[in-house]
Order: sequence, then C-alpha cells, then structure tokens
Amino acid sequence: MRILYHLPLSPQSRLARLSLSERRIPFETRVENVWESGEDFLALNPAREVPVLVEEYGLAVPGGSVIAEYLEEAYTGATLLGHTLEERIETRRLLNWFDVKFHNEVSRNLLGEKVDKRISGRGTPDGTAIRAGYANLRFHLDYIGWLSETRAWLGGAQLTYADLAAAAHLSCLDFIGDIDWSRAPFAKDWYARVKSRPSFRALLHDKLPGFTPPPYYMDLDF
Amino acid sequence: MRILYHLPLSPQSRLARLSLSERRIPFETRVENVWESGEDFLALNPAREVPVLVEEYGLAVPGGSVIAEYLEEAYTGATLLGHTLEERIETRRLLNWFDVKFHNEVSRNLLGEKVDKRISGRGTPDGTAIRAGYANLRFHLDYIGWLSETRAWLGGAQLTYADLAAAAHLSCLDFIGDIDWSRAPFAKDWYARVKSRPSFRALLHDKLPGFTPPPYYMDLDF
Repeated sequence: MRILYHLPLSPQSRLARLSLSERRIPFETRVENVWESGEDFLALNPAREVPVLVEEYGLAVPGGSVIAEYLEEAYTGATLLGHTLEERIETRRLLNWFDVKFHNEVSRNLLGEKVDKRISGRGTPDGTAIRAGYANLRFHLDYIGWLSETRAWLGGAQLTYADLAAAAHLSCLDFIGDIDWSRAPFAKDWYARVKSRPSFRALLHDKLPGFTPPPYYMDLDF
Repeated sequence: MRILYHLPLSPQSRLARLSLSERRIPFETRVENVWESGEDFLALNPAREVPVLVEEYGLAVPGGSVIAEYLEEAYTGATLLGHTLEERIETRRLLNWFDVKFHNEVSRNLLGEKVDKRISGRGTPDGTAIRAGYANLRFHLDYIGWLSETRAWLGGAQLTYADLAAAAHLSCLDFIGDIDWSRAPFAKDWYARVKSRPSFRALLHDKLPGFTPPPYYMDLDF
C-alpha cells in the first residue's frame, strides 16, 4: 500500500491527504516527527519535511504541491488543476499563495509558534509572531471571503487544489481555535462546503495529544 | 510583444527571464517597483510581487514557478521539467527547495535586508538576519555542490528549472558580492556552466543604481 508520511497539523500534509482522497486513491498514513527523523527519512526528503508520499513500488514524492502536480500527471480522473491554461494559472497562483504567502504570514506565526514548538519541545512561543499571525489572518480571511463571494470555488467554477490548499491551512488553524468565523461570513460559507466533502472526514477526526479542538471543529453546521 | 514585469535582483524574476530565454521566447522587460505599485499592477498579481508575464493578448501569469509551469504547457519545444515522472518530481522538488527553503533561509535574509530595504527606502538592514543568511548559505552551497558532483545538472542528466531556479538565486547574491566561490568548488563549476549559456547573458548586464557588482560577476571564467 502507498504510504503518506505526515503530521496531523501540517497544512502541506493535509493538502496531500485531501488531494489523494478527492481522487479516491487509497493510502495509509504514518506520523513522522521530523525533528527526530534520521537518515532513512532524509533519503526520502532532504528538506526533512512532511508530507512525503511513497508509492508501493518505492517512488518517493516530497512536498504538498509536488504531490499535487504528481497526482495530476500520474493518475487519471477529474483534474484538480483545471482544464484551460487560464484555470491552471489561477489554481497554481492560489496554491502558491497559500503555500508560501499564507504560510509565511499566518501559519508559520500561529501553528509554528503554538503547535510545532510545543510538540517538538524546541523553543517557546514568540508573542510578537503570534500577534502578527492574527493580524495577517484577518486580511487573508477577507481575501478568501472576496474570492468565494465572486466565484463558485476559490479558483473559479470548479473545486481545485486552490480550495484544498486553503482548507488545509484553515483547518489546522481551526483545530487550535484560532479562527473567528463570525468575522468572516463568506469564507465560512465556502469552508462549510469544503468541510462537508467526504475527503475531509479523516481530517475532522484527527487527534493530537495535548490539544483539544473547539467543539465546532468537527461540526459540519458550525 | 509579451511583457515581463520584473525587478533586476528578484530571484523569481530571474527564473522567469531564464525560463523564457532558454525556450527562445521573445519578451520585453519592464521594471516594476512593487512597493509603489497601484491598482493596475494588483489586478495582474494580487500578491503585489514580481514577476508577472503578460501575453500580448492579455493573459497574465504571476510568479516564477507558475510561469515555469505555464511555459511548459503553453509552448512546444524541449522540456525544462523532465520527461519521466521521476525527473519531474525531482525538478519540482528542487524548484520548491530554492523558491521556498533557499528563499526563506538565505535570499530573504541577504537580498531582503541589503537590497530590497535599500531600494524601497523601507527599513534598515537587520544584522541578525544577515548573519543567519550567511550561515545558511554555506549549507546550501554544500548541497548544490553535492548535487553537481553526483549529477550532470542539479536535477539529473539534463538542464531543468532546478538549475535555473538555483542560478537565479545565486546570481542575485553574486551581484552583491555575497558568494565566496573559493569555498564551493563543485558549485562553482556547475554555476560556470549555467552562466555561460546564452540565456544568462542579459542577467550579466543588469545594472542597479547604487550597487556595483564585483568584477567577477560578469566574468565567465571567474
């Protein structure tokens, strides 16, 4: 069976899980505590990061967006990148937006400080970074709201990796109670639609020792 | 004519210039001072970042790696991603390595502090960041050296976007004299090969007011 090395609250890992599940490609997950990883894991991904997908015949695919592009090329079925050049540009623009801009401005400041430091036992949360993360999150929720107000899905008329990448980040932040949905009605409507997809179910049942998600985290009608 | 909005010392912009030139796709460049950009540019790229490629018929493609994927799909000719699934995974892994990991660990600390702050007139260089950038650069030069010692090109047997992304970053750092090539003989041999390609010529003639590149910057036999 193919294996996905992951961490429950890693947005890139969640993007990979959603990408596989949307395509109904079966996989097993293995938690990889990257701060303890040795040579075996470094051989799979020299960046020492999750996710890494390993096919049954041994092919290793490291990184959320690399896995997304790989699945599109290696497996048949509906596209999650889009059909036209314009759609594919927009999907990749947003995939990059979430994996780089949102990550640097929000997720690294909130998940990095509040989750990664705690579970790895390395460092103490930096209050300045956390405050910056919250401030940036408001701007990003407005942008997600604006996109979902003007389009059926974030990238356009159909569900794409743009939705999966955005939902991957937001679901991690929602798990630690960092999203005030009352301030973001349009983003909330869009997130409710993504959250109710079968591909999302496993994410809603994630457990992490020492963290208790708020009651609305699992609620499809939050 | 298609237009590339860029900044001379933006690694992502240089990746786009190299990607277009390697494919012999003609383009004009326009310098876009993103810290002054208004609504017109934000409509092309809401992230307010260069590069943005605008085709003659109006299609806008924002971001170095998005442009790389777009060129691969929109234009015929030799691939810069690789032919097999394995090659394309390795190219994208390294493209991501340079555009995210190298950028965050090295370029943001050196180019961001020493160049971007100066030309935009915003902020003063942070010595701690600069020291971190130099320390991380040594590790990355070793990794580039290891790759080029064991393969013809960074991604494998042929030139790919992995080489162009790496050379885009290193050429910006070389312009400000931040690379000690005497410490990195294998990386230097690889860089000399990339630097002597016709696609690189325009980059070697870049000028930036207030910055004088070291004499070896333009030298193909440095």
